[in-house]
Amino acid sequence: MTRKILVLPGDGIGPEITAEASRILAACQANGLDIEIEQGLVGGAAYDEHGEPLPAVTLDKAKAADAILLGAVGGPKWDKLEDLAKRPEKGLLGLRKNLGLFANLRPAITYPQLASASSLKPELVAGLDIMIVRELTGGIYFGQPRGIEVRDGQRVGFNTYIYSESEIERIGRVAFELAQKRGKRLCSVDKANVLEVTILWREVMERLAPEYPDVELSHMYVDNAAMQLVRAPKQFDVMVTGNMFGDILSDAAAMLTGSIGMLPSASLNESGQGMYEPCHGSAPDIAGKGIANPLATILSVAMMLRYSLGEPEFAGRIEAAVGKVLDDGLRTADIASEGTRTVSTREMGDAVLAAF
Amino acid sequence: MTRKILVLPGDGIGPEITAEASRILAACQANGLDIEIEQGLVGGAAYDEHGEPLPAVTLDKAKAADAILLGAVGGPKWDKLEDLAKRPEKGLLGLRKNLGLFANLRPAITYPQLASASSLKPELVAGLDIMIVRELTGGIYFGQPRGIEVRDGQRVGFNTYIYSESEIERIGRVAFELAQKRGKRLCSVDKANVLEVTILWREVMERLAPEYPDVELSHMYVDNAAMQLVRAPKQFDVMVTGNMFGDILSDAAAMLTGSIGMLPSASLNESGQGMYEPCHGSAPDIAGKGIANPLATILSVAMMLRYSLGEPEFAGRIEAAVGKVLDDGLRTADIASEGTRTVSTREMGDAVLAAF
Ligand SMILES: CC(C)[C@H](C(=O)O)[C@@H](O)C(=O)O
Ligand SMILES: CC(C)[C@H](C(=O)O)[C@@H](O)C(=O)O
Repeated sequence: MTRKILVLPGDGIGPEITAEASRILAACQANGLDIEIEQGLVGGAAYDEHGEPLPAVTLDKAKAADAILLGAVGGPKWDKLEDLAKRPEKGLLGLRKNLGLFANLRPAITYPQLASASSLKPELVAGLDIMIVRELTGGIYFGQPRGIEVRDGQRVGFNTYIYSESEIERIGRVAFELAQKRGKRLCSVDKANVLEVTILWREVMERLAPEYPDVELSHMYVDNAAMQLVRAPKQFDVMVTGNMFGDILSDAAAMLTGSIGMLPSASLNESGQGMYEPCHGSAPDIAGKGIANPLATILSVAMMLRYSLGEPEFAGRIEAAVGKVLDDGLRTADIASEGTRTVSTREMGDAVLAAF
Repeated sequence: MTRKILVLPGDGIGPEITAEASRILAACQANGLDIEIEQGLVGGAAYDEHGEPLPAVTLDKAKAADAILLGAVGGPKWDKLEDLAKRPEKGLLGLRKNLGLFANLRPAITYPQLASASSLKPELVAGLDIMIVRELTGGIYFGQPRGIEVRDGQRVGFNTYIYSESEIERIGRVAFELAQKRGKRLCSVDKANVLEVTILWREVMERLAPEYPDVELSHMYVDNAAMQLVRAPKQFDVMVTGNMFGDILSDAAAMLTGSIGMLPSASLNESGQGMYEPCHGSAPDIAGKGIANPLATILSVAMMLRYSLGEPEFAGRIEAAVGKVLDDGLRTADIASEGTRTVSTREMGDAVLAAF
């Protein structure tokens, strides 16, 4: 059965990095992977063309796809759009919500070849391997009521941080199951000393725990989690948290590795359909220069093959190819260091293809 | 005119560290500072005695005081209290709210003597001096509606992230004014690409900016701010943000310095009344052992003298005494390193007193 892959380059460096990742997908195809590749517009690119960050045609293609590869969205060009609903970010949020991609898996891994790129002392990050499980279709990102309105003669802005038991349970199970396949330690992050919504969060995690007796569940307040990530990140195996805290902590964790340009992510729904994208953003400052690091996007293809297409062998081949290229000393500018060879986006893609 | 100081030791290591700080206060008194020192109960200690984390008697004393010195609140003993209103943290939150302490100043400074204690590479944190201005009496900490209730047959938890224009303006002015006295750069942190409440936040900051033409205002999304703090913290001078983001980012920033046991904080209201406390928590694991670091609390006294009592000379003397003790190689266990002498809480207090 032919699987459908939708590639959404998006904005900024998105087109450059997805171009390289698409070549890897094509190489898999040439090696017998039965897929069909389509392209679509999302974010600012879609707004410029259709006046909407998530046009119906893109959403339809996305729904029909088995998996989506996304570059990145957003940029200063669209930051001044008054209407939040028109901003590039809404394209991304709309895809997540409409496809029900509630489970965002964000690995923070230190590549041995790149350990010195971290701002942390090498011994604190060598071998780091954290998996952050972020709830992606609920919480304060989507909570109602929300808006800006006049109350008592002045404007107030408000958003609602809300989770139901079933939403918490659903993401909790994903996290427990991942922990079972990894180091068997799950840290749930909340602010249960202040926020009622996270009291419920903690309670549901506690209720699930006996069903996963091999997993050791702990709880940490979000402020402490931010500190502990800086202090001693290797204490963590799997972390699970809500949409907003997950946004913040996963970016901090990614940056600990020193090579955010290397980190892929997956956003999955209940039927295993997934959207895959690099952890980094659209980097408008370097867009169009041909120097962006395509490896996070290429590794996102590997995650796609593993999680949505059930093709761990192709995934492994891509990961091995990336490892080989790093071993060979090839680096894009963002991860370059003394004694390595700085290459362009395209040259990096070429090298991975050659090693594939 | 005799100024009233209220000391609230609180829980965990609170009593030990405030004891040392109180001795410094007494030394100031002996050197001519006209103050009156009282004690009170707050947090778990108050709950155990009065069944309330913020008894009326404590609140009355707090209102009557010119400044408050707080140790820390909370601990596992009270974590199981079902009723959030009874938890130690509510004592702290109640003080903040009832006294209108909306401006929380959290410096993140690397002490030259302790630069090697950071988990970051020394060159990234040497000379670090960030001031985080956190809004403390609004936002999601206090927003209504909030709670846990049954909707459509299942429980949901919810909190409200809300700010009015005047609340934002008030904290914005504090931050702009601080920036004017420092490096003249202010970074406002929000999530204006997703949350309406922070669109209003950004708008108000922009509106204030022309009144402070010597300050360069920038904006950063909270996820990026968490990354940038890890990547290159010295890019920041003053940061201003809401209650929740401020909680997370100030703890991360404090940990960057490697010596959170050294960092004081101030929480001020419109009339300059203030509550002063160490950035660190109640550390129940080491409570009662006499090994906690009293320096953050002692430096909180210095902040109190500067911001609430208008006594910069006494403040300077305390800060100089702490510097001298560090120069002399004295360290509590949390900041100990090779070649230094590890001392107890009391010995550290003795040393600061001797150097005062
Ligand atoms: C672009 C933005 C809306 C998005 C988010 O906040 O979720 C991004 O930061 C991310 O983490 O994927
Ligand atoms: C104890 C807790 C309620 C408090 C907060 O979240 O504000 C603490 O973390 C702080 O930062 O002072």
